This record gives sequence, C-alpha cells and structure tokens, in this order.
Amino acid sequence: MTKKILVLNSGSSSLKYQLFDVDGDKYTVLAKGLAERIGIEGAFVSMKIGDGEKQIKEMPLPTHQEAIKAVFDLLLSGPLKSLDELAGVGHRVVHGGEYFNRSVLITNDVIEKIEELCALAPLHNPAAILGIKAIKNLLPNIEQVAVFDTAFHQTMKPEAFMYALPKNQYKDYKIRRYGMHGTSHLYVSQKAIELLGNPEHSKVITCHIGNGASIAAVKDGICIDTSMGFTPLAGVVMGTRCGDLDPYIPLYIMKTQNKSIDEVDKMLNKQSGMFGLCGLSDNRDVEVKYFAGDQEAIIAMQVYSYCIVKYIGAYIAAMGGVDAIVFTGGVGENGAEVRKLVCNRLAYLGITLDEEENKKRGQITRISTADSKVKVFVIPTDEELVIAQDTIKLI
Amino acid sequence: MTKKILVLNSGSSSLKYQLFDVDGDKYTVLAKGLAERIGIEGAFVSMKIGDGEKQIKEMPLPTHQEAIKAVFDLLLSGPLKSLDELAGVGHRVVHGGEYFNRSVLITNDVIEKIEELCALAPLHNPAAILGIKAIKNLLPNIEQVAVFDTAFHQTMKPEAFMYALPKNQYKDYKIRRYGMHGTSHLYVSQKAIELLGNPEHSKVITCHIGNGASIAAVKDGICIDTSMGFTPLAGVVMGTRCGDLDPYIPLYIMKTQNKSIDEVDKMLNKQSGMFGLCGLSDNRDVEVKYFAGDQEAIIAMQVYSYCIVKYIGAYIAAMGGVDAIVFTGGVGENGAEVRKLVCNRLAYLGITLDEEENKKRGQITRISTADSKVKVFVIPTDEELVIAQDTIKLI
Repeated sequence: MTKKILVLNSGSSSLKYQLFDVDGDKYTVLAKGLAERIGIEGAFVSMKIGDGEKQIKEMPLPTHQEAIKAVFDLLLSGPLKSLDELAGVGHRVVHGGEYFNRSVLITNDVIEKIEELCALAPLHNPAAILGIKAIKNLLPNIEQVAVFDTAFHQTMKPEAFMYALPKNQYKDYKIRRYGMHGTSHLYVSQKAIELLGNPEHSKVITCHIGNGASIAAVKDGICIDTSMGFTPLAGVVMGTRCGDLDPYIPLYIMKTQNKSIDEVDKMLNKQSGMFGLCGLSDNRDVEVKYFAGDQEAIIAMQVYSYCIVKYIGAYIAAMGGVDAIVFTGGVGENGAEVRKLVCNRLAYLGITLDEEENKKRGQITRISTADSKVKVFVIPTDEELVIAQDTIKLI
Repeated sequence: MTKKILVLNSGSSSLKYQLFDVDGDKYTVLAKGLAERIGIEGAFVSMKIGDGEKQIKEMPLPTHQEAIKAVFDLLLSGPLKSLDELAGVGHRVVHGGEYFNRSVLITNDVIEKIEELCALAPLHNPAAILGIKAIKNLLPNIEQVAVFDTAFHQTMKPEAFMYALPKNQYKDYKIRRYGMHGTSHLYVSQKAIELLGNPEHSKVITCHIGNGASIAAVKDGICIDTSMGFTPLAGVVMGTRCGDLDPYIPLYIMKTQNKSIDEVDKMLNKQSGMFGLCGLSDNRDVEVKYFAGDQEAIIAMQVYSYCIVKYIGAYIAAMGGVDAIVFTGGVGENGAEVRKLVCNRLAYLGITLDEEENKKRGQITRISTADSKVKVFVIPTDEELVIAQDTIKLI
C-alpha cells in the first residue's frame, strides 16, 4: 500500500507544500503549491497537480493555521479523498543548532528546542513553529518530522566551526559556524557519490548556488566544512547578500556613515551581492547585461565566479583532493555562464568543460569531458524529496 | 663612496629605526633601535650597533620630533659623524590607498595624500606623517621616501579587491580590499623566485605569519590576491585579531550583548584570535600549552593552521597552481609546529616536510624534501632592507 506524505516549508508570510505518494522507494509528487501573503492583504493559495494547470484561489489567510486549512481544502478537491490518508507531515526547519544532527520525530521537547533556537534564526524558526503547531491543531494525531537545514553540517570539527573570538561568544552566545542548505548538500552529494560508483572514499564539493548560495566540502559522505557561517550572510557572493567581508566593514559603515545596526543589516542582506555590484540580483538578468558587454555586470560575474573558485580551492585543500564538483540550486542548475567561468579557472585540476553538455537544463548532467581528472556534475536539488524520505523513515 | 640611509617606522607612540650603510648592492645595518612611549611617562630611546650591547637612554620624549632628535644624538655618538652623511630617509607608511602602487619620493602632494588616507588607517598614517614632518623640520633639505604597506597589492584586479556591497561603498567611501604587509610579501616572493631559478612564470604563495598575519598569491612576481582586506582585521586568525568572520557577527554581538561599536572593535582586534581561543596570543606560549596536551591550545592550533591551509588552497585555485610556498614573519620563521601542521595537510600537493630542515631558524631554508613537487621555504623577511633599497633607488 502506498503512503501519502505532506512536506511543508513555512516562511514568515508564506508556506510551500508538496504532497508525495510513496510506494516503497518510489516517490511521486501528487500536488504542490503555496500559500502566499499570510496575514497580509491579497493572500492566495495555489495548487498544481502533476503537469496540470496551476489553480489559484484568492482568499484571506490571517494565520498559518488558516493557510494550511486552505491547502487541505485544495488537496481534498482532488489528490486526497480524506485527510486520514496522510501518513505524516515533514517540515523544513532552518536552524537545529547543536541539538540536531539529523531529522527527528517532533515531540514537545523538539518544539521547545526549535523555539529556543529562534534567537539564532529569528526570521525562520518562528515560522516553522507556526506550521508545526497548526498541523498539531488540525490533525492532533498525525506524526510530524523536522528536517533541519543545519543538520548535515553538524559533523564539522572545531577547526571548521570555531571562530577565533573570545571563548564566551561560543559558550554563552552559541556563535559558531552552522551552515545552511544542508538538505540540499546532503542530497546532491549522495547523488554524486552514486555517480562516482559508490567508492569507499570520496571527496565531493557541492555548490548550492541560488539566490542564497553555499558551498560544502563532503568527505566520504560527511560534511567537513561549508561556506555559510553563523548566519546565511557569510560565504560566496549571493543575489542580494554580500557574502564574506572584512569583519571590520560593518562597524566602519556604522561609524562613518552614521547608520544603525538594522540599516547595515538591511544593506548587507538586501542591497549587496550581485545587486550591489551591478544593480541586478537575478542571474538571468545579470547574464543578459554581461553578454551585452556591460562593465558592471562583467565585474560582478568575475567577483561571483572568482569567490566560488576560491572556495573550491580551499575545500580541495581541506579534504586533500577532490573527485567531483557539483552545481545545484537555481543558478547552479541554470547558470551555464557562471559554471563555465568557474570550470575554466579549474583547468589546472585537469578539468575541461564539455560546452554542449553545459547547455543542458533540468537533468543530472556530467559537464566535464570524459578525460577530465575531476568530474563536474549538474544535479538538480530536491530538498522536498529528502524531507519526504526522512519523514517516511521516522514515522 | 658609500651612502647612509635612515629607515623609520613610526607608530603612534613609538618609532623604530635602522641606519644602513649602502655600498653598491651591499647593505649593512650600522645601527638600529627604537624610541618608546613617545608622549607618555617613562619614555626611552635605544640603540644597538652591530652585535654590540643595546644602549638604553631614559628621557622625556614629548613628540616624535624630540624622539627623532634623541635618535640623532645617539647616532652621532657613534655610527654617524655628522647628519650631513645621511643621503636620505625612508619611511614605512601603512596606507597608500589607490594612490600609490610603488614607493615614492615625498613631496607636499604626497604628504597631503597620506593625510587624506588617515581615514583608512587612523592608527598608522597619522604617525607616519609625524615622522615625515619631524625629519622635514630637523633636516629641511634631505630627500625622503615613502614605502607603502599596501603598494604591492595594488596590482589586484577588481575580482579580488571588490566587495559585493552597494556601489557607493567603494565609490564614495573607498571600501575595498587593500591588503597589508606588502613590503614583506614583495621581499620574500622575490627571494622565492630567485630560489626557483628566476623562471619566466612563477606561482608563489607567501605566508607572512606574525602577530598580524596575511597570505598573498604572487603570480609572475605580481600580487593577485591577499587575505587582509579593507583593514588588517580580515584573513587568517592572528595573535589577538579574529580574521575572517561571518559579517553578521559584529552586528549580532552589538545587538544581543548591547555593546558599542568601539567595544566590538576592541573585542575583534585585541581579545580575539589565538588569545580568544586559548587565552594566549604569543605562538611560543601557545606551543608550550599545545605540547602539554591542553585542549584549548590544541583546538586553537587546529583552527590556526586550518585557515592557513584553506587560504593556500584558495590561492592555488586563484593562480591555477603553485610552485612555492613561503613562510615568513615571527611565527612563519620560528613556529615549526604551525609549519608542520600546515605542510602535513598539503601532502596532496606532493609536499613532504623535511623535519630536520624545519627545525632551523633565522636563515633561508627549504623545508620541503628534495622530491616534493612544490617547494616550501622559510625566508626571514626584511622590510627595512626593502625600504632602504627603495630609498636609494628614488633619491
């Protein structure tokens, strides 16, 4: 008999969902969609069944609970006959701190810990709590699973996760490197290891490059380092986030430009990155300007690809070599020019880009030539699938 | 006929000097010493002639000018017969901004530019100005040369020096990567290229590891990247400086611990780094605790060496390979254990450490075995010599 699993990704005013039908190892997405503008004027829910048309229903959604109720109503109009068919609900939770190094069945204790970690992810963890509690109210007996964005990175050693700050900053304030996008890094690194033929030892570098972006070093399937840090602001240049900076810069901007903490926070998170460099945050738009010869877009693409190259180099040194490099995420999967700029600089590793393969989209592709010493893959990520799998495993 | 050159390194309350005798290509240090606690109770000047005893003279030194006058009096008591013997004075100047990509003869325009750059180096450039003006008052006709710590790094391309911040941060506020220790990176990279046999193309990574520390990627003798950034706070972990951090951390500490800009500045610059990790900033002390099995010192050494390894890996990727790695600076020249931890992780490059050679001190040494694919050198730095050479060249 097949099982149906609902996967939820709750944001502060939005909620994405996917309904899976699980038949042994076979996971089929029956429906997916989202609820947008929760608690805001102009809210709506949407659903798409298979390759069908997207249905959109405008309606007030004052709370996450009402948004989930509206999603249930949509699901019951087609893919589900009864909510009793749901075998479990899996939630994406951004921050698991040092408590969670794997997915867990949600208990009251787990909810308390996720709440405690709101200090470290003030925009994300509260939303996850809202989603979990809404399901608890609507379906009191269903089993729920939390899948953490940070869990895969919890294998990092102190050499990789400790900042050189006064001791109490880690001890009392939990300031350390956590990393993000763990579910994606886990998924694509496992796929890459399969593509390598499941060797006993493997060194894989996964580049999850989307609007947010992070890179991870995965040795023998275990994460040993990642570019995001205490928060998702660190690491490579992103759509609107600055990535790594001299840590004196935020203080200098506050001091010399008379800005508040929140103004600098906003500047670094929302007005920097590719947007800061060339006025555009979407890589598709940047590529248009870049190919048109726009000088700002050219420099932005150089900065962008160069910092990826440096992280790849750093992680090769961290692992003592590399067998495969993986691109995933919106830009990683679709940004052929970024991949080309990166791979061309990695020629010293014996990597040659297969220009034809590099043009493909939406499928697992080896974009390095057959004689390349290191394999380069594009692997579309599927975080919802991992959440569904972990949910099945735990319920 | 030989020429005598005075080299000055002015700090806010101290002043180091060396007197060189220059005979063609031969540079001999006749005397060196310092003036300490300028403008503070308990001031003194010192001088050491060749291998002789250090002379120390306690006396009030209210200003840099009086400190230089006191140094002159000491020099006239032995190594100099008359100040007329001085052919020129070379100054170490920390920040040359984008104005200076090489050493220059000091004119009024140069002084104005160094003054303008005080905004970028508020602790250092004002001191250099004091030194330059004091010499101008005491020896109005002597030629003076400014040698900038940032100049060697001015060859970096935008991909390496641009931060992904809003455009006006670079345009209006000059926030970019400048790098420091340029004179040292220049000196030891040139020595390394000589040791490689002056090949047409070369890829050298220079690790200047002292109480402050920076790493540079030097391709064909030209700096293409370096780890310090807008300020000397960025890059690898240092004695008391944190090095790279998630740029959100300074804001988070201010916000959640209710600290001022200046308190966080002090924390990151004076209470972090190795001192933050294990309570000790001097590598000799850290090594003692480390060999005694102290857990904090072990983690500190791991963090310290690991971030150096990652920078070396990043710069190999930036240059597309590496021919030689150089250690210099207080720790780079004397910290055998740090070098060992770094080199052992670089085995994947075909580097094997020669444990015996690694024990030597105070001389140019190849510490990689003869069959290592990449050469690793210890090269004692000599910034004063470069300043004397540039001074001779320009006067």
